[in-house]
Amino acid sequence: MAVVPLLRDEEAGAEALAVFDDIRAKRQTDYVNNFWRALAHDPATLKATWDRVQAVMAPGALDPLVKELIYVAVSTANGCDYCVHSHTAGAKAKGMTPEMHGELLAVIALASQTNALATALSVPVDDRFKA
Amino acid sequence: MAVVPLLRDEEAGAEALAVFDDIRAKRQTDYVNNFWRALAHDPATLKATWDRVQAVMAPGALDPLVKELIYVAVSTANGCDYCVHSHTAGAKAKGMTPEMHGELLAVIALASQTNALATALSVPVDDRFKA
Amino acid sequence: MAVVPLLRDEEAGAEALAVFDDIRAKRQTDYVNNFWRALAHDPATLKATWDRVQAVMAPGALDPLVKELIYVAVSTANGCDYCVHSHTAGAKAKGMTPEMHGELLAVIALASQTNALATALSVPVDDRFKA
Amino acid sequence: MAVVPLLRDEEAGAEALAVFDDIRAKRQTDYVNNFWRALAHDPATLKATWDRVQAVMAPGALDPLVKELIYVAVSTANGCDYCVHSHTAGAKAKGMTPEMHGELLAVIALASQTNALATALSVPVDDRFKA
Amino acid sequence: MAVVPLLRDEEAGAEALAVFDDIRAKRQTDYVNNFWRALAHDPATLKATWDRVQAVMAPGALDPLVKELIYVAVSTANGCDYCVHSHTAGAKAKGMTPEMHGELLAVIALASQTNALATALSVPVDDRFKA
Amino acid sequence: MAVVPLLRDEEAGAEALAVFDDIRAKRQTDYVNNFWRALAHDPATLKATWDRVQAVMAPGALDPLVKELIYVAVSTANGCDYCVHSHTAGAKAKGMTPEMHGELLAVIALASQTNALATALSVPVDDRFKA
Repeated sequence: MAVVPLLRDEEAGAEALAVFDDIRAKRQTDYVNNFWRALAHDPATLKATWDRVQAVMAPGALDPLVKELIYVAVSTANGCDYCVHSHTAGAKAKGMTPEMHGELLAVIALASQTNALATALSVPVDDRFKA
Repeated sequence: MAVVPLLRDEEAGAEALAVFDDIRAKRQTDYVNNFWRALAHDPATLKATWDRVQAVMAPGALDPLVKELIYVAVSTANGCDYCVHSHTAGAKAKGMTPEMHGELLAVIALASQTNALATALSVPVDDRFKA
Repeated sequence: MAVVPLLRDEEAGAEALAVFDDIRAKRQTDYVNNFWRALAHDPATLKATWDRVQAVMAPGALDPLVKELIYVAVSTANGCDYCVHSHTAGAKAKGMTPEMHGELLAVIALASQTNALATALSVPVDDRFKA
Repeated sequence: MAVVPLLRDEEAGAEALAVFDDIRAKRQTDYVNNFWRALAHDPATLKATWDRVQAVMAPGALDPLVKELIYVAVSTANGCDYCVHSHTAGAKAKGMTPEMHGELLAVIALASQTNALATALSVPVDDRFKA
Repeated sequence: MAVVPLLRDEEAGAEALAVFDDIRAKRQTDYVNNFWRALAHDPATLKATWDRVQAVMAPGALDPLVKELIYVAVSTANGCDYCVHSHTAGAKAKGMTPEMHGELLAVIALASQTNALATALSVPVDDRFKA
Repeated sequence: MAVVPLLRDEEAGAEALAVFDDIRAKRQTDYVNNFWRALAHDPATLKATWDRVQAVMAPGALDPLVKELIYVAVSTANGCDYCVHSHTAGAKAKGMTPEMHGELLAVIALASQTNALATALSVPVDDRFKA
């Protein structure tokens, strides 16, 4: 159970409901997932977060699937179980195959391992890697 | 300064030197970066790590640039300054443009923010995100 | 389920029971929460932790509610679900309003985001911020 | 040295310069700190971040000093050295005394310790802490 | 529920099944735990991980129980609930007594606390601690 | 440079100086390392921390060297550069050989890797691992 109750449509205020409606319209689904229903207690943060998600995750120099893979990687390193689930689902919806998923996990595992080694040895940054 | 001295070629043992030579050959450069020189105190881990890097970072279902982006994302979330520098350099060498770098950072920042919100609210995973 | 069984009063040793009694007296409640019941397997750590909680969380230059907000912030960044729940409840008991909760989460989310950006860019500390 | 060069005024584009000017005006200082100069490579993220900082850190249900304390707490738990320095300086500028600083650190240290204990024991959340 | 289904023997491919069989033989048990069943979707990572576990966790300059204690410590700091459970069980199987468990947790808690203090104060490393 | 100045003996108050003297006596050295000099701004936390270090790190069911290894492991996972340096030095002073150091790092790296995999897959805890 969440730290706060998840707000159903009939419990959400007008400002939160407007965001729910926008989520439904942009994602072409009736389903509003739990993250937004928990955030709805603070409509200002709900709206700011949703606006930022749309701006950042849109196609650009990186394609949306690559952005989802990066999202899963960060969520894993931060230990966010909710985010790992929701963005793995998002990546699949955008075309992530089982092979891609396997390679994503292999890179995350490798990076976690070498991050730990570099930190445990306090390896100084090579001059050529500095701006 | 590292927790252990960085081993120069003439200080490294034969097994470590063989890995250094393989790094030089595969990367077509004379330069062996500090991470490998710190790891050289333990040739078995040096070799296992270098072998794993080659296996995981090779082209596959994901292309090598995407893998570097994921590596930077994990290294940032884990707070590994060395790895952020080395893999940002690696991503640039594989074609990351300033626009891609900007979008990478924007996704990392967004994920860090929503990870924190989901954790602070302990949002329960939606059934539809579960396997 | 915990990694160790939660000790009921009748299962706890005399030293642990004395801490339970002190918790009940100081907090003016019969309820001893799960954290203490799990710690009770090691009465020395149980007592040292409870003593430290009392010393640190008492009113001082910062008031107890502010201390609870800081506690929730650290617990979120460390990904401790138990602690997020117990200290959010503690903050509410000390007067945290929904508006305060919303602002707490907004600061945590903002800090998480700029922490990631500063790390990913390895921004050098300005001289004026150094002691 | 940063992963990217810090942009001086004369190197920053018009959009970034407008943010620098706004920072100077709002903070009533000529000094623009390194974080913003590193972010200036991506004017969109620079502006979005600065806008969010202003919205979130403004006086509200929590006062600005309390918000800075929370910021330091998150930055510490996330291991962001730059942010620890800049927000400790920010807290001092807003009135944090040495006594407050000492209590802030004591709470951060205590929370880090009990977070670790609760995680190592996987303590289940008490029903009464759930929404 | 996992992000991917746990593969039963009859669902796993030949390469994954060979690893399962090796786990059973080496551990002298019929039980294959969930971690390996989740990894079985990517037989290459399954095999590489199992091989590395055997190489690293074998008796050497450190005995296997000490290695399990270190494993629990890292898993706690990384907030991995699964790993805390499985490696605490592993440590018990290798002889960890309740007293050892209590001392392990006390060291983890102390380190977490002083890690936070050193980070919040950005204490410079003493020259004598450098290689 | 630290967030606060490191206090020299002549700058420290009487209560902090008493702790410095106790550190010198117990460790049989004139040297007081930077961590304690930074903590000396808050004598209460200085004393509480030093007392706890003595209680926790003393010989018990685990020997002091094993405790230092666990300390290095936690410090690495938490990304505390100061603590990695000081406790690696502490472990060496207590008898850690280069072979032990190599195995310590190999376990830390392996755990970091499997922690990430278990988190990215959200592997459910096996019933047999639960208390």
